[in-house]
Amino acid sequence: MAKEITGRDENYSQWYNDIVKKAGLADNSAVRGCMVIKPYGYALWENMRDQLDSMFKETGHVNAYFPLFVPKSLFEAEEKNAEGFAKECAIVTHYRLKNDPSQKGRLMVDPEAKLEEELIVRPTSEAIIWNTYRDWIQSYRDLPILINQWANVVRWEMRTRPFLRTAEFLWQEGHTAHATRDEAIRESLMIHDVYTKFAEEYMAMPVIKGYKTESERFAGADETYTIEALMQDGKALQAGTSHFLGQNFAKAFNVTFSNDKNENEYVWATSWGVSTRLIGALIMTHSDDEGLVLPPKLAPTQVVIVPIPKPDAVLLDKANQIATALKARGIRVLVDKDETKRPGFKFAEYEMKGIPVRLGLGNRDLENNTIEVARRDTKEKQSVSLDNVIDHVENLLAEIQKNLFERSVKFRSEHTTRVDNFYDFKEILETKGGFLLCHWDGTSETEDKIKEETKATIRCIPLDAPEEEGKCVYSGKPSKRRVFFAKAY
Amino acid sequence: MAKEITGRDENYSQWYNDIVKKAGLADNSAVRGCMVIKPYGYALWENMRDQLDSMFKETGHVNAYFPLFVPKSLFEAEEKNAEGFAKECAIVTHYRLKNDPSQKGRLMVDPEAKLEEELIVRPTSEAIIWNTYRDWIQSYRDLPILINQWANVVRWEMRTRPFLRTAEFLWQEGHTAHATRDEAIRESLMIHDVYTKFAEEYMAMPVIKGYKTESERFAGADETYTIEALMQDGKALQAGTSHFLGQNFAKAFNVTFSNDKNENEYVWATSWGVSTRLIGALIMTHSDDEGLVLPPKLAPTQVVIVPIPKPDAVLLDKANQIATALKARGIRVLVDKDETKRPGFKFAEYEMKGIPVRLGLGNRDLENNTIEVARRDTKEKQSVSLDNVIDHVENLLAEIQKNLFERSVKFRSEHTTRVDNFYDFKEILETKGGFLLCHWDGTSETEDKIKEETKATIRCIPLDAPEEEGKCVYSGKPSKRRVFFAKAY
Repeated sequence: MAKEITGRDENYSQWYNDIVKKAGLADNSAVRGCMVIKPYGYALWENMRDQLDSMFKETGHVNAYFPLFVPKSLFEAEEKNAEGFAKECAIVTHYRLKNDPSQKGRLMVDPEAKLEEELIVRPTSEAIIWNTYRDWIQSYRDLPILINQWANVVRWEMRTRPFLRTAEFLWQEGHTAHATRDEAIRESLMIHDVYTKFAEEYMAMPVIKGYKTESERFAGADETYTIEALMQDGKALQAGTSHFLGQNFAKAFNVTFSNDKNENEYVWATSWGVSTRLIGALIMTHSDDEGLVLPPKLAPTQVVIVPIPKPDAVLLDKANQIATALKARGIRVLVDKDETKRPGFKFAEYEMKGIPVRLGLGNRDLENNTIEVARRDTKEKQSVSLDNVIDHVENLLAEIQKNLFERSVKFRSEHTTRVDNFYDFKEILETKGGFLLCHWDGTSETEDKIKEETKATIRCIPLDAPEEEGKCVYSGKPSKRRVFFAKAY
Repeated sequence: MAKEITGRDENYSQWYNDIVKKAGLADNSAVRGCMVIKPYGYALWENMRDQLDSMFKETGHVNAYFPLFVPKSLFEAEEKNAEGFAKECAIVTHYRLKNDPSQKGRLMVDPEAKLEEELIVRPTSEAIIWNTYRDWIQSYRDLPILINQWANVVRWEMRTRPFLRTAEFLWQEGHTAHATRDEAIRESLMIHDVYTKFAEEYMAMPVIKGYKTESERFAGADETYTIEALMQDGKALQAGTSHFLGQNFAKAFNVTFSNDKNENEYVWATSWGVSTRLIGALIMTHSDDEGLVLPPKLAPTQVVIVPIPKPDAVLLDKANQIATALKARGIRVLVDKDETKRPGFKFAEYEMKGIPVRLGLGNRDLENNTIEVARRDTKEKQSVSLDNVIDHVENLLAEIQKNLFERSVKFRSEHTTRVDNFYDFKEILETKGGFLLCHWDGTSETEDKIKEETKATIRCIPLDAPEEEGKCVYSGKPSKRRVFFAKAY
C-alpha cells in the first residue's frame, strides 16, 4: 500500500494527489472542479471546524445562516467586490425543468421558467449580509454585530485541485459591524490572532502574520490581514484572511446608525474566513512519502491498537482495556478488530492515514507486560511497560504535536532567505524556493513586474517587521522594511 | 412587547409569523422564498443538529460532503426522482458575469460563458451520491456504506413560510448502501426509530409512526416511513422521513457488487432526512400567545437570572454564583446584566424567547435567602430557598420537558377522532380538525377524491395498527385497518 504513492522528490503534485486519494480524504466528482469530501476527510474538517467554532464563540461571536443566492442587483452594489468575483461565479437563471419533447426520458430547461433577476451562487456573502444588516441596525445600541456563518461557497475556478482550489468549498465567514473604525480594526486583528493560534497550536503549522499589498487585498477591503504558511515544496499558502472593510459595504448598501450624539454615520465592517483549503495546507505541511501525517489535536483517530498477529479473545480483551483507559483521558482510540488483513498491511494503512500513535500488542508482549508504541511523525518504535502505557501515550501525543510544529518551524527558517539583489532572488526562488525576505519599493508596478518575471508575489508585509533602511530588490529604490515574497498556491 | 403578537385564536398563521420574527428566529431575505436564520434560531438548530448528529454516530454513521450541483444528465437518470423534483429546481446555466455595456456599473450574464451541461442545485442528493457510490462499491466487503451529510438544498417552492417551507433549507440527508433488501429495510426502520426518539425525547413532540401511501411516497422510493406530528391548529406536520429505495438508484446508476458467491447484484439503498422545518414544528407544538415555548433539552438558554430591579454589585455577585453552580451541572445559563431596561420588559422578552426557567433575584429575596423561580410552560412562579435552588432548577427543567410532552400527547389524543362516515369526516375536519382515524379502501382513487373534496390527506398508515374489519369512510368498501387522515402543512 505505502509503495503506491509517488515520492515528494519525484513529483510533488502527484504525491499530494496520491495522499488525498489513498488516505481516503476526498474523491473527484461528476461536477467539474467539485470534490467529494470522504468520511475521513470530513472527520478531520469536523475537528477543525469544532475547534474554530469554539474559539469564535469564546471571542463573543454567534452563528447565523444567510441565503445561498445573491440577486444580481445586490451582487453588483459594491463595485470592487463585484468586479473581483464577477468572472468566476455560478449563475442561476431558471427555476424549472420540463420534459424534452425531442428525447424521451430526458429533461430540458423550461424557457418559460426564466428568473426575472438572475441569482448568483454566493462566492462570499458580504452583499447579501450587508443588505440584511441595513434592517438590523438603527442605533449604536444595535452594535456591534458579531456573526459567523458556516457555509458552502462557489467560485468558478478554471484550474482546481482537491482542497486547495475547488469550485465549491466549505468555509466559515465572519461578518461584523461596528460603530467605530478603531473597533473594526481591532476586531480584524483579533481574528487574525485567533487564526494564528489555530494554525500554530492545533495544525502545528507556523505562519507569518502580516497584511497584504493593495493588489493582493480582498476585493472591497481597505486592509487584508493574512497568515501565510510554507509548504514542503517551498511554495507559500495563504491560510486565513481577515479584512477591515472600512465603510465600503455600509455605503454600497446604505447601512447607517445614529451614534450617541444622535448623528447618522455609516457602519464599519470586517469579514474573515478560513476554508477546507486548510486541509490541503495540513497535508502539505507534515506528510511524508508514507502518507498523511496529522497533528494529534486534529487527528480523527489519535491512537490505533493493533492485536498481533490477529485479534484473538485475549489480545482483544487487553486492547479494549487499554482503549477504555485512553478514552477516559479524552483520547480518540480505535481498536483494530479486522481478522482478514495481515499486520504489515494494517501498519502501512494506518501510516497512510496519519494516525499519530500505533500500539502493537502481541502475545509475547503480553507475557512481558509490554506493548510496542510506534509514533507516526518520526517512525520510531519503543517497547513500553503496560503499567504506564496510558501516561506514556498521553505524553507522546503532546510530544508529537510539539515535534511537528518545531520541525515545521525549522523547515521554514531553513527556507527563508534574506535576499538583496534580483539575481539572487531568481536563483534562490528556482533552486531552494521558500520565503524571500526582501526590500521592496512599495509600488504596484514593481510588484507586478516581479510577478511577471518570476511568478513570485508579495505574500505579506509582516506586522512585526523592524524598520530597516534598504534598497528595493528589483528597482533599487529606497525601502524601509522587508516583505515576504514567495511563489504561492 | 408580549402584546405585540397576534393571538392563536385570532389568526394562527399571523401568530406563527409573529413568533418567528419577535423571538428573533428568522427574518425575510432579499431572495424570494429564502430566509435568514438569525443567531437565536441558529443556536436552536445547532442544538438539534448536534443531538441528531450524535445519535447518527452512535448508530454507526459517518458524515461526508457531496457537491451542491447535480449535472442534468445525472439528475434525470432515476426517472421517478427526476419527475418529482424537475418542476421546482434552481438551474445554473452560466459561470461568468461581465460588464453591461448599456448600463455603467451594472453586470450582465456573459452569454459566452454558457455551460455545456446545465447544473441543478441539489433538491436532494441521491443522484450525485449514487453516481459516486458506483466507484466505491465493488464487493460485499465494501458494504454497508452508512453516510450522512449536513447540507443546504433548494426546492423552488411557490408558497413559502419561514422554516416550514423555504426555497433553500438546511437539513441532513443519510444515504446508505446495503448488500441485502432486509438490511436496507432494517436501516430505514432503525432511522425511523431514531427520528421518533429525537422528536419525542428532545423536541417533546409526540409523533405517529407509520408509512406513506404510494401517492405520498418520496419520488424514487419503494417505501417511505414517516413521523407525523399534530400542530395546535389541528393540522398535521410531516416531521421526518426515512425511505427504503429498493434497487432503484442502483439500477439507474448501475451500482453493483459481487456477493460472497461472486455473483453480481444491484445494491440496496435507503435515504432519510430531517430539516430546519423541525423548528417550525417545535414552534407550533408548544408556543402560546406570549411567544415561544422551548423544551429545555433544546433551548439555547435554559435558565436566565434577572437581578431586580437592576444588576447592582451585590445582586450580580449572587447571580453569578448561582450561574456558576448551574453551569457546573451542564445547564445553559444567562445572567442579565442589562442596566437600561425595566424588569417587566425583560420578563416579557424572555417569555417571548421561550427560555424555560427565569430566576428573579431582588434585595428582599436576598434578605430572606430566597429567589423567585418562574417556569415558562405554565407561567407559575414560586419562591424557593437559595439553599436548594440548584437542585430545584435542575429538577424543574426535567419536569418542564416532561410536562411539554404530556401536554402535547393530551392535545393530540383530544384531537384524534375515530370517524366512520364521510359526513362526520367533513364535519370534524372543519370544526375540531386534528387526526381522523378512519378505514380506507386502499385505493389511490379514494385517496385523491377525499383530498379533492376536503384537502385532507392520508398522513400515514400506522405501523402498529391492529387489524380491524371495517368499511372505507368514503367508498364503503371493505378495509382491514384504520389510517390517519389530516390536513397538513
